[in-house]
Amino acid sequence: MSNGHIFVGEVIGTAILILFGAGVCAAVTLRYSKARASGWVVIAFGWGFGVLAGAYTAAPLSGGQLNPAVTIGIAIDTGKWGKVWVYLLGQLVGAMLGAVLAYLVYLAQFQANVRKEGTTEGTADEPVPTLGIFSTIPEIRNPVANLITEIIATVALVLPILAFGLTKGLGESGTTVLIVSLLVVGIGLSLGGPTGYAINPARDLGPRIVHTFLPIPNKGTSDWGYAWIPVAGPLIGGVLAGAIYNAAF
Amino acid sequence: MSNGHIFVGEVIGTAILILFGAGVCAAVTLRYSKARASGWVVIAFGWGFGVLAGAYTAAPLSGGQLNPAVTIGIAIDTGKWGKVWVYLLGQLVGAMLGAVLAYLVYLAQFQANVRKEGTTEGTADEPVPTLGIFSTIPEIRNPVANLITEIIATVALVLPILAFGLTKGLGESGTTVLIVSLLVVGIGLSLGGPTGYAINPARDLGPRIVHTFLPIPNKGTSDWGYAWIPVAGPLIGGVLAGAIYNAAF
Amino acid sequence: MSNGHIFVGEVIGTAILILFGAGVCAAVTLRYSKARASGWVVIAFGWGFGVLAGAYTAAPLSGGQLNPAVTIGIAIDTGKWGKVWVYLLGQLVGAMLGAVLAYLVYLAQFQANVRKEGTTEGTADEPVPTLGIFSTIPEIRNPVANLITEIIATVALVLPILAFGLTKGLGESGTTVLIVSLLVVGIGLSLGGPTGYAINPARDLGPRIVHTFLPIPNKGTSDWGYAWIPVAGPLIGGVLAGAIYNAAF
Amino acid sequence: MSNGHIFVGEVIGTAILILFGAGVCAAVTLRYSKARASGWVVIAFGWGFGVLAGAYTAAPLSGGQLNPAVTIGIAIDTGKWGKVWVYLLGQLVGAMLGAVLAYLVYLAQFQANVRKEGTTEGTADEPVPTLGIFSTIPEIRNPVANLITEIIATVALVLPILAFGLTKGLGESGTTVLIVSLLVVGIGLSLGGPTGYAINPARDLGPRIVHTFLPIPNKGTSDWGYAWIPVAGPLIGGVLAGAIYNAAF
Repeated sequence: MSNGHIFVGEVIGTAILILFGAGVCAAVTLRYSKARASGWVVIAFGWGFGVLAGAYTAAPLSGGQLNPAVTIGIAIDTGKWGKVWVYLLGQLVGAMLGAVLAYLVYLAQFQANVRKEGTTEGTADEPVPTLGIFSTIPEIRNPVANLITEIIATVALVLPILAFGLTKGLGESGTTVLIVSLLVVGIGLSLGGPTGYAINPARDLGPRIVHTFLPIPNKGTSDWGYAWIPVAGPLIGGVLAGAIYNAAF
Repeated sequence: MSNGHIFVGEVIGTAILILFGAGVCAAVTLRYSKARASGWVVIAFGWGFGVLAGAYTAAPLSGGQLNPAVTIGIAIDTGKWGKVWVYLLGQLVGAMLGAVLAYLVYLAQFQANVRKEGTTEGTADEPVPTLGIFSTIPEIRNPVANLITEIIATVALVLPILAFGLTKGLGESGTTVLIVSLLVVGIGLSLGGPTGYAINPARDLGPRIVHTFLPIPNKGTSDWGYAWIPVAGPLIGGVLAGAIYNAAF
Repeated sequence: MSNGHIFVGEVIGTAILILFGAGVCAAVTLRYSKARASGWVVIAFGWGFGVLAGAYTAAPLSGGQLNPAVTIGIAIDTGKWGKVWVYLLGQLVGAMLGAVLAYLVYLAQFQANVRKEGTTEGTADEPVPTLGIFSTIPEIRNPVANLITEIIATVALVLPILAFGLTKGLGESGTTVLIVSLLVVGIGLSLGGPTGYAINPARDLGPRIVHTFLPIPNKGTSDWGYAWIPVAGPLIGGVLAGAIYNAAF
Repeated sequence: MSNGHIFVGEVIGTAILILFGAGVCAAVTLRYSKARASGWVVIAFGWGFGVLAGAYTAAPLSGGQLNPAVTIGIAIDTGKWGKVWVYLLGQLVGAMLGAVLAYLVYLAQFQANVRKEGTTEGTADEPVPTLGIFSTIPEIRNPVANLITEIIATVALVLPILAFGLTKGLGESGTTVLIVSLLVVGIGLSLGGPTGYAINPARDLGPRIVHTFLPIPNKGTSDWGYAWIPVAGPLIGGVLAGAIYNAAF
């Protein structure tokens, strides 16, 4: 695969992933959305099927890695580092593009995210904080615990992906992407509770940059103080998964 | 495939799609339904598995496109336009047939959609508006924003479908239809919040025609003022997806 | 396949189907169940994955039809009627066995289905009616409408199953059963609202016989006046699906 | 497969299974989790996709059995008992490791599991009991009924798994693990209501040992009086499934 194909594939695939992922968070969070308050199962399946859509679309161009933690895990496994920077660049650009697309899909909802007429400050009709649509926010702010959560959840993503490659016949079949997307649903359901499961540095950093610059009414903080954890945690998790894989398989 | 096979396949397949889709909206909306108020996750999976049922049934006859936006995206990709009109005609007829079938499945519920005895006007026991069972209604009526939502959501449907064809072995296997149906579940969960995700001109127009003419008690408006958006948006999205595909892949 | 294999396969497969199906209805209905009141999505997936479990188990013995409507649809398609009686007998016996197994799984819950101590007649703490765990009950009792619902829902099951056989490569692969089980989930979500979707004469009749004879405390009526509809409707639907298939495919 | 590969595969695979399974129970149970109170459907899919993740990862090393009841069912079927002890040892060690990992993912939530400031004893703000995150607890404590529930639910797991091996082409394809994981979702939805569906002796015993020794604040009882049922029930179920399989197939 040429650098151009890889870059375009990762941009398109990661953009679709984030369009679905930020989209489902907007769907569940914002007022005037038909899916408002429809619960955690909707969040987890929305992100998982975003992986399905993005990875399948990107597969013929770049293989559809869409995640720096996956790319680094694969590089550790194969020892091929030459094209890693193309993957990472495409993933970050794609994540930013996807966040803008999700914003456009929910444009009218974002514009209506103001205090409801006739209500007063401090009530449930205040504007909804918007950062959670774009990037992750921990329920309990505890850097060590948050980092551990992201590391373990990322190992639970990357180690199975590396192992899938070994199982006979899977590499070429359409089933692999389906299984990885259901794996991501499972990580969301099971391990997403404490931090909102970044498990992908591009997924968190790209949309956070977009959130910082987009002119969203009442958008609230972009919380850059937390931003290093959903980057560092998944990177450490990707390295750890690659190391476990090389040692055990 | 002969024109006859294509027409029959698209009629049957789209009828099944709309039977499931309008059916699940009736299931969640109408009084005296066991699935009443069971939430957005039921809506999204109901529509997605309607794609599964319809596309699989139509596959041996017409390939199971069931959606003018998909048909046009494929025509732009392949350059073959000769049979497009047969697909489109079958899809519109099938969508109308499916809406009638869904009405018949929920016949007793539609007939019972009256004000509950002993209650007064303006209470929660008034008849449920029925258009949302047949066609899409935006949460915020904003033509530009609604059109953007439908365009992006349709690109997110058609571009992956076009890309799926490239992945080795998928074209012949049963997995493709399964993946497309889960993709539609994902679009519903993630991108359906603002407009109810037509992403298919036949899916919206056919049932709206049926809603206009069926003698449903207390059916409310058929809202023809909005009807052009769920037709134009998906058509633009299909063209755009075909163009992106030809440029990038 | 010998008659013995067919009979044993259909008994085991249908028993597993009803174990899961009656089980999930008990899980959602009965007091002292961890899944109590968990909603329609749980019902629909529980029944669908019951098809998955039962059909896969029965596949090497009998092909895993598990439903007289499916068996008759296939017989109309293939013209082979000689072994139909073996299938039907196995399905009825299996459905009865499955209902007994589901009763045993929820034995303590059934035994605890009494009025809560200290409460009075007519409150929410009265015993739960148990027939809905075993057999279907319409929300609105209207024989014509109920029959139409069951006929259309059964066509939506059997016609896709017949068409699946035509799609290249599906017949031998493991994907077919998975797709049929998700189709059943979709029928539940979309078409189950009015009557509780029997779509299978054995699924309704077998457990109703068991309900009549099992010594369940406070079991309530077995409602034999309705019992002909979930038998006749699916049989008509199976015949109709076979006829449509022969005409259109 | 060497003893070393089997042991490592079963440790890693079972650890991932329990990480997801105990994780989803923590996600739904503990305060300050984004998935709190998201319902039984989340529990059932979380455990099922834990099987998906664990079995796929372990597949190239040990085949991914992850459950003594499955291992014993297969041994009865094949007559090969020589390596059973390696599987069982790996499964128990893996289950303990997975429970520790789930504890680490929810570390901040476990540490915050104290009475909310300013509230008094006996209110809803008391610490949540934690054993249900690690091991199963029956809704109604009735040894005979609980044992019957676990036996039947385990037969419903192991008999389909044994039968899957017979269906042509399944053994080598990636679809098998997907189907087994959805089977586990179905068992959870349908048969999990009375006892919380151990259906796996290692899944219950390993985390119970960990719960006994981990320094969790306000952890409550480890309930060793019940511990024999989720070990004996699944073992009996596995033997029974193997016997039924040998007799019927």
